[in-house]
Amino acid sequence: MNRLEKQMAFALKIDEEKNILRQTHLSHHGRRENDAEHAWHMSIMAYLLKEYANEEIDLAHTMMMCLIHDIVEIEAGDTYAYDEEGKKTQAAREALAADHLFGLLPEDQKQEMIALFNEFEESKTPEAKFAHAMDNLQPFMLNDANDGGDWRGHGVTKTQVYGRQSRTAEGSLALYEYTDKILQKHIAKGDIKDE
Amino acid sequence: MNRLEKQMAFALKIDEEKNILRQTHLSHHGRRENDAEHAWHMSIMAYLLKEYANEEIDLAHTMMMCLIHDIVEIEAGDTYAYDEEGKKTQAAREALAADHLFGLLPEDQKQEMIALFNEFEESKTPEAKFAHAMDNLQPFMLNDANDGGDWRGHGVTKTQVYGRQSRTAEGSLALYEYTDKILQKHIAKGDIKDE
Repeated sequence: MNRLEKQMAFALKIDEEKNILRQTHLSHHGRRENDAEHAWHMSIMAYLLKEYANEEIDLAHTMMMCLIHDIVEIEAGDTYAYDEEGKKTQAAREALAADHLFGLLPEDQKQEMIALFNEFEESKTPEAKFAHAMDNLQPFMLNDANDGGDWRGHGVTKTQVYGRQSRTAEGSLALYEYTDKILQKHIAKGDIKDE
Repeated sequence: MNRLEKQMAFALKIDEEKNILRQTHLSHHGRRENDAEHAWHMSIMAYLLKEYANEEIDLAHTMMMCLIHDIVEIEAGDTYAYDEEGKKTQAAREALAADHLFGLLPEDQKQEMIALFNEFEESKTPEAKFAHAMDNLQPFMLNDANDGGDWRGHGVTKTQVYGRQSRTAEGSLALYEYTDKILQKHIAKGDIKDE
């Protein structure tokens, strides 16, 4: 295959991400969301909310990180944020999938995409931290719009939610403060267990 | 509402784009694709295929154009590329929807998003032309992967397809040449009517 054919083979393969369902439901108590929709949503949010990032971010870099961060789930499956068993094997499963899937691309772009995926996972750069803030804020927003149904359905606890939301603060203190007020409302209502 | 609340109201509203179905089907003869999935897919393709753009493009700008170009369909509905009746009223319906939907944002971002949407529609800048090439190439790729089923289903003609693909050439001659070979195969097979 020539360079363009490899790029198109990858482009076609990632179509399958649209079939990976998440635990989050669409607003108006809709169906379950898929990974591609989630990535689309967080990328737009990254663009529109960049003024709240703790540090200055490169926008194209952050958006692409948002767009591709779940591609590995085509092979590795979705691991729910509060699935402690699944999370033990998640990194190894996803690294193997990254090598396979990004391996469809020409070598330079394979390395670029793996680096971008690893950057997201390591969450050390301003861009990766802000992408993680979006990865939290987007399902948080939908869950709030659905009266906390996904938290109730999974019996999620205050400790779990705060564990996750602490990553939002690393990317954006302003957005963490915004979510914290909403979280407290859901804890008071009992949507999130105050153990 | 304060600035952040307006931004979040917009972010929540656009969730509804996930319910706007297109005429294109997912690969492996899957279900119909929705607008959010389509936008996600073309943005990634814009990033990976930027080397084929006729002119140099700003990447974040092009990606955001891809991501938001169909948001108006939340109110205006999807108009199929070969629906000549629907296309007569499309621009007016979409301009009204843009004013409503982007109007949820703070004024500066409303103007920025309307400008981005209009830039896409006018298709004069290198970024808009390349975004249009992606808007064509992404469903083209899926349709080819599904053995031309969407063309056959709608009785699409050679004149119609070439009318649309000419826009791909404005953004990327290289990608136009790539699609042209595939098109000729589908015309020869009868998937596209050679009237």
